[in-house]
Amino acid sequence: MQVVVIGGGAAGTSAALEIRKRLRDATIIVFNEGPHTEYSPCALPFVIGGHIGSFDDIIMHSPSFYDSIAHIDLRLSTRVTSIDRDVKQVHTTHGIESYDKLVIATGSTPALPPVEGLAEACASERIVVFKDLDDAKAVDELCDSSKRALVIGAGLIGTEMAVALNERGLSVTVAEALPTILPHVLDEDMASRVIRHLISVGINVRTATCVEHIAVNDTSVSALLAGEEEEFDFCIVACGVCAVEGLAAEAGLDVEGGIFVSETMQTTDPDIYACGDCCSSVCAITGNRTLSQLGSTAVRQSKVLAAHLAGSPVQFPPVLNTAITRLAGLDIASTGLTHALAHEAGFDTESSRYKGQTLPEYYPGGDEIVIKLVFTPTGHIIGGQVIGTSGVLTRIDALSVAIQNGMDLGQVTIMETAYTPPVSPTIDPLCTAAEMALRRLKKKTG
Amino acid sequence: MQVVVIGGGAAGTSAALEIRKRLRDATIIVFNEGPHTEYSPCALPFVIGGHIGSFDDIIMHSPSFYDSIAHIDLRLSTRVTSIDRDVKQVHTTHGIESYDKLVIATGSTPALPPVEGLAEACASERIVVFKDLDDAKAVDELCDSSKRALVIGAGLIGTEMAVALNERGLSVTVAEALPTILPHVLDEDMASRVIRHLISVGINVRTATCVEHIAVNDTSVSALLAGEEEEFDFCIVACGVCAVEGLAAEAGLDVEGGIFVSETMQTTDPDIYACGDCCSSVCAITGNRTLSQLGSTAVRQSKVLAAHLAGSPVQFPPVLNTAITRLAGLDIASTGLTHALAHEAGFDTESSRYKGQTLPEYYPGGDEIVIKLVFTPTGHIIGGQVIGTSGVLTRIDALSVAIQNGMDLGQVTIMETAYTPPVSPTIDPLCTAAEMALRRLKKKTG
Repeated sequence: MQVVVIGGGAAGTSAALEIRKRLRDATIIVFNEGPHTEYSPCALPFVIGGHIGSFDDIIMHSPSFYDSIAHIDLRLSTRVTSIDRDVKQVHTTHGIESYDKLVIATGSTPALPPVEGLAEACASERIVVFKDLDDAKAVDELCDSSKRALVIGAGLIGTEMAVALNERGLSVTVAEALPTILPHVLDEDMASRVIRHLISVGINVRTATCVEHIAVNDTSVSALLAGEEEEFDFCIVACGVCAVEGLAAEAGLDVEGGIFVSETMQTTDPDIYACGDCCSSVCAITGNRTLSQLGSTAVRQSKVLAAHLAGSPVQFPPVLNTAITRLAGLDIASTGLTHALAHEAGFDTESSRYKGQTLPEYYPGGDEIVIKLVFTPTGHIIGGQVIGTSGVLTRIDALSVAIQNGMDLGQVTIMETAYTPPVSPTIDPLCTAAEMALRRLKKKTG
Repeated sequence: MQVVVIGGGAAGTSAALEIRKRLRDATIIVFNEGPHTEYSPCALPFVIGGHIGSFDDIIMHSPSFYDSIAHIDLRLSTRVTSIDRDVKQVHTTHGIESYDKLVIATGSTPALPPVEGLAEACASERIVVFKDLDDAKAVDELCDSSKRALVIGAGLIGTEMAVALNERGLSVTVAEALPTILPHVLDEDMASRVIRHLISVGINVRTATCVEHIAVNDTSVSALLAGEEEEFDFCIVACGVCAVEGLAAEAGLDVEGGIFVSETMQTTDPDIYACGDCCSSVCAITGNRTLSQLGSTAVRQSKVLAAHLAGSPVQFPPVLNTAITRLAGLDIASTGLTHALAHEAGFDTESSRYKGQTLPEYYPGGDEIVIKLVFTPTGHIIGGQVIGTSGVLTRIDALSVAIQNGMDLGQVTIMETAYTPPVSPTIDPLCTAAEMALRRLKKKTG
């Protein structure tokens, strides 16, 4: 069997390796448009911020690994230009290749916000529309010669980059058009805690602030922020990403906000799979199609894809988009829908916020942890957000597993978690948060 | 309504407080045999070890809290001598009291191992059969004047006490009759890692070592260990605990290895509830009655009890006995059955051990984490054990919630957990452990 994979990022590489684990004799060819072997895109801000030694550290595999160990035919700097499904071939910038099974892992591309002058300014090295390793290296170099940076967009990448630049000693302004930050993962009440934290470390966070105009010259970037012209040494654009679905669409596959895939990661052509940022998933809460676009989702999808391609009946479950980030020492995590997004999706939604401690009161060294739960009037949990300086992963993962299994508030209240004074309280703050939520509901319903 | 609670420990106090939350007008009387208000028994070794400032710190509530805030009539140093169910009264060392509802929370009492001479030696202050705050204070004082201590029993309390004494600078020997330590929570292969760790900090761990004889004089304890006489300054006995069920048995309630309670925490008399160490639970794996005897179980039970007593239809679910401890910086956790206990219970059992990392390889500061999964040939998970210096709580809690919901190995493999490089790997080590387990099964079944 000949398997062709389009895309050598996390999704494509993981798919190739997972397929290799299961099919020892398959020929596996991976086409990658860029010049690099797989690296960790999520790690880029942490290299810039100085937490990871160098960009080389986050390269996952050397070319010889593909060659000699995984026996994967990796073709770098090669773009697939079209898919001919009738004869099961892909056309590339370096010739034609046949496939028995095709995997599309074309990833995502950054969105450009509607800022006047931005399209032209992008040609300058002082404007980095942040996407990949080369962009990160460019930012890293700019840091050495700069003092003031503007980040447009306060999503996960924007805030992580702002913190990284701050850690590099730059004066950083983050401009976000929405009245809040991290809107996909936090409600405004929770985001306000993060904003205060970012401000406390010296980042100039400006929400509800559109960049009205941008212009570049040889030495600086000038941006019109809320009616006032401000000067920066460079600017990073981080306003979200779009699925790269053009190849799939041109080949006649269903695309509708991401390449459509079934639970087995097959597109509307059963010989063509897709995984990662380029394809849509089913939202576990709404049942609608959604773009997950998390590194963890990509790898989990690649495992399901490989299993199915090799004949195992595994299915990819609906997603909660469980995510976490660390911003200047503060951990911020989310699963399911925020109150705002749940309301938008038409849910009758309640929510409740609980401030607990990671350790029993009497044990030194505990940290405050804030847990927000989002739920229906019947106690069905549809999301949660956790913020703290420690113990955040524990609570978001337990909550994620609980929601994946449809546990309701009452069940989470007496859910079994591990206790010993130096590690955790008798009743986990997550369970207490559920109890507070339940009490709130009871008060409301009388 | 008049509610009488027998026992003022964690279970009884929590029950009283939970009932108060729900029934504002009830009269609540708590009889406690000992002289202390509620304290954290699990914290005792950590006070002795110096991690918590003083014994006063772990007293949960002052007498005036009961009086003025919770409006609970707490009667210390008062023993309930019998229950008269016909007239719904309890007889105590200080008179008779009527009840509408009765809660039995009599806790547990330490078991005495069959060591020659121990029963007589127990009269000495140099032998502490470890149970409560007063015992801990006695040990604390002994530490100041001692150099060599013997701990008999290497369960959770025995190992925690051994570490505490070691932290106090004593030379500590732990003698355990079984060939392994922590037998209820770890299999031998996992326990051997803990033994190595305890030895590395200087604790003399002697497994498969019966204390054949013990004798005390004014200045020392001499013990016959594997045929050799050894001298110690004092000895702690920590060989497990038994449910205190005498009162319940004498009142004609069903007791069979702990007071029998239904899912609503009612004994065989619907007006009498029980919770905590004195009552049995249903094991989530075997379906048999089991003694949980964890602080977390006691409090969770008290919540169910109070809810039911106040008219809410909550049920206490079967238990996994999810537990964690920290021994000299190493976290050790367990949920469900060990391979050995599962085998003993008649399960056709497989297991698999995975050594992972808490962070992506490239991110500095990650720790090794060892995860053992116990499962059936069909991939049904029946237990797990986790050891590491960080990130252990996260994995045991996620696994505990997964098993509570009946997730199988395949589902855990692609379970949704949160990822960001400074906090966790793309695929959580727990999910990778499940994948390794599944691979092992597939190899076995061809």
